[in-house]
Amino acid sequence: MTLSKKPYRGTRDFFPIDKRKRDHLFQAMNETAELFGYEPYDGPLLEEVDLYRAKSGDELINEQIYSFTDRGEREVAIRPEMTPTVARMVAQVHKNETKPIRWYSIPNLMRYEKPQRGRLREHWQFNVDIFGAPGFSGEIEILQLAVSLMNKLGANETHFEILLNDRRIVDALFKGAMGANEEQALKLYKIVDRAKKIPADAVAKLVAELNLSSPAVALFDQYLEVDSFEGLLALLDETKQTQTATDLRAFLVQFNDLGIAKYVKYDPAVVRGLDYYTGIVFEIFDKHPDNRRALCGGGAYANLLKIFNEEPLPGIGFGLGDVTLTDFLETHGLMPDFTLASNDLFLAALDETSMTKMLQVASALRAHNIKTVTALEPVKLKKAFPMAEKRGAKFVAFIGENEIQNNTMPIKNLKEKSQVDISMNDITSIAKHLRA
Amino acid sequence: MTLSKKPYRGTRDFFPIDKRKRDHLFQAMNETAELFGYEPYDGPLLEEVDLYRAKSGDELINEQIYSFTDRGEREVAIRPEMTPTVARMVAQVHKNETKPIRWYSIPNLMRYEKPQRGRLREHWQFNVDIFGAPGFSGEIEILQLAVSLMNKLGANETHFEILLNDRRIVDALFKGAMGANEEQALKLYKIVDRAKKIPADAVAKLVAELNLSSPAVALFDQYLEVDSFEGLLALLDETKQTQTATDLRAFLVQFNDLGIAKYVKYDPAVVRGLDYYTGIVFEIFDKHPDNRRALCGGGAYANLLKIFNEEPLPGIGFGLGDVTLTDFLETHGLMPDFTLASNDLFLAALDETSMTKMLQVASALRAHNIKTVTALEPVKLKKAFPMAEKRGAKFVAFIGENEIQNNTMPIKNLKEKSQVDISMNDITSIAKHLRA
Repeated sequence: MTLSKKPYRGTRDFFPIDKRKRDHLFQAMNETAELFGYEPYDGPLLEEVDLYRAKSGDELINEQIYSFTDRGEREVAIRPEMTPTVARMVAQVHKNETKPIRWYSIPNLMRYEKPQRGRLREHWQFNVDIFGAPGFSGEIEILQLAVSLMNKLGANETHFEILLNDRRIVDALFKGAMGANEEQALKLYKIVDRAKKIPADAVAKLVAELNLSSPAVALFDQYLEVDSFEGLLALLDETKQTQTATDLRAFLVQFNDLGIAKYVKYDPAVVRGLDYYTGIVFEIFDKHPDNRRALCGGGAYANLLKIFNEEPLPGIGFGLGDVTLTDFLETHGLMPDFTLASNDLFLAALDETSMTKMLQVASALRAHNIKTVTALEPVKLKKAFPMAEKRGAKFVAFIGENEIQNNTMPIKNLKEKSQVDISMNDITSIAKHLRA
Repeated sequence: MTLSKKPYRGTRDFFPIDKRKRDHLFQAMNETAELFGYEPYDGPLLEEVDLYRAKSGDELINEQIYSFTDRGEREVAIRPEMTPTVARMVAQVHKNETKPIRWYSIPNLMRYEKPQRGRLREHWQFNVDIFGAPGFSGEIEILQLAVSLMNKLGANETHFEILLNDRRIVDALFKGAMGANEEQALKLYKIVDRAKKIPADAVAKLVAELNLSSPAVALFDQYLEVDSFEGLLALLDETKQTQTATDLRAFLVQFNDLGIAKYVKYDPAVVRGLDYYTGIVFEIFDKHPDNRRALCGGGAYANLLKIFNEEPLPGIGFGLGDVTLTDFLETHGLMPDFTLASNDLFLAALDETSMTKMLQVASALRAHNIKTVTALEPVKLKKAFPMAEKRGAKFVAFIGENEIQNNTMPIKNLKEKSQVDISMNDITSIAKHLRA
């Protein structure tokens, strides 16, 4: 039998070029999180299914999760998301930790779904959360961090926007202004969540089924048409949601003060489904006409620890996947060229007797942190240049009988076509030259 | 129902201190591989079970693998090791790739086994392989790379040794010198693999069952007692395995020339089970009396691509797991202290009105790559110091009404107890001071 060479459906083989792209994203994620003082964590690949059942209800469990029964009769699942794991971990330590707790991670996750653009079965997701931050400070910091990451990757307000809403504002309008009861409000949330994907008359039909008063229905239509914070504030004022309007104004002042106002846009349709959010909810959205999709979803939640019988600890966080982020960067031409590796030196021997000396010089240079690729058999002078280029080397150097006799090594800069000769005894000078 | 806060059996929660330790290992692995010009790759978390069945036979599949049937009736497994994946990937590209192919990866792997010291169900493993290297050059480079990694982590020849053998040498002795047939040789391999774990008389009994000649049995006993390359060479000379002895001598010369001889020890009992190795086999072994175990196993293989109907492409590689490596470093006191995060600055406002300015300064410093943790509510001067220490900050600074009025920020070095005042307009100077 001949085996398939292809990866399992919906997963990816990361050849060096692909892995360097992924490393580029991960490095930006790690560096950004660390700049804000976030600390790294990770959890297990498998969790008991009960953990997901407690958080998400049965729909996700039945349809989208990779679950199975282990040899010890435990029902386990490959993690489809990181939030239940981080909640489980925070529940263990939050009583003794200094607040706020700032954590980040980049786990691999799996969901069983039909592979399509932007959605695969396996992906990596940057998860950032802050727990126990006072007032709106956690919200502001998390949004700043998300913007910083996008900026670090070369993206600005022409490339992406942050579509933002707040569950408390939506509640104030639905329950306070429109007089919807719990059940009606829940259904309105579901309608809002689908509002962009279905036609306006289908939305109207769904709303009509809820038996709301006509002023409430009119208000709902008005809500769905809000397209700015100014418009939202007008609506809140008009409907006498005074406290909510005051809180929002204070929040918006900080957006201006901290330079993130230009990225943030109010979007009444963003409610993040039936997720666990209780405060702000947001999505980073690609502005490119060919790639109109969310890269990232996040928000504030108050009750994540409840399933562990722990005291409430409010948190704010987001998840940003590598598949959508890669699409985003490539769509906008923001992904650097990773075709070749990046090495300092390609080092070759010109004859068999010089091989040992060449390998010794290579070792010595590596001890000086010079990325040195060696040719593992003797190489003719002319052939070494294309070989060095294939290895992405900045410099090429040879060692042959003459070089050993003179104890001097010619080092050529491939880009500048220049050459210097340095004594092979003086590895420090060679390393310094190669790093310059 | 209250959910368990514990991780799934045999897996680990990586809290920040644990994750920083793991990052320390991964950084050393990445840097070492890159110094040798190895390129990063990764594969999917799940592979079809056939891939493992083709390589390992049914034992591993039945007992140690996390396998299940997906919703599309595919039999899949969580990767228990990386070699089948790397073989599958190399099989896709080897015809068009410049040789040698040098690749590395640090995947998470899962095996169903009884958790014990050094063995967990989930671990990460540094995998390094070179394909298509001429002569013994790949073997030498891979051993050099393994030694470099251990050196980078602070370990030297007092901490670890590399126990080495060569299947071709063992074959020369078993088949050539002892006259064993294929079946007998296979059984001798199995006995050798268990020789250190069972008493000498049990070994003798197993050998007796093979109906070898008495000189062959005597030779086998002599083989098992070899404890140095000199002893091995003497045995090869004595039994007229001339070519094998010549090859070995040439190999050993390189160990001396390249500074790895002091790490490498001949061990007749190392054969790496019934694995796919065809040339050298080796283990990095902990010398500490409390932790006598292998950290790493590797070797040379000729036929990995056969299961894909591809031309043979010889390779050499090893796998080094994070669990055993962590035990090793901690046993020898070589693990740095990662209790605290490492931040440049802890920045606080002394009053509510200074919060915005403080957050603006924090943003500006982060744009200069200063790792800045902010206090998210006003802090009293005295309380800021212990807070800064908990965050692992090198410097602490405050902004209050006076500071805003003078436009100057006092920056205190926590370790040296010194202070400088720098203008808040001059973020570049502040950043420079914090980096110094």
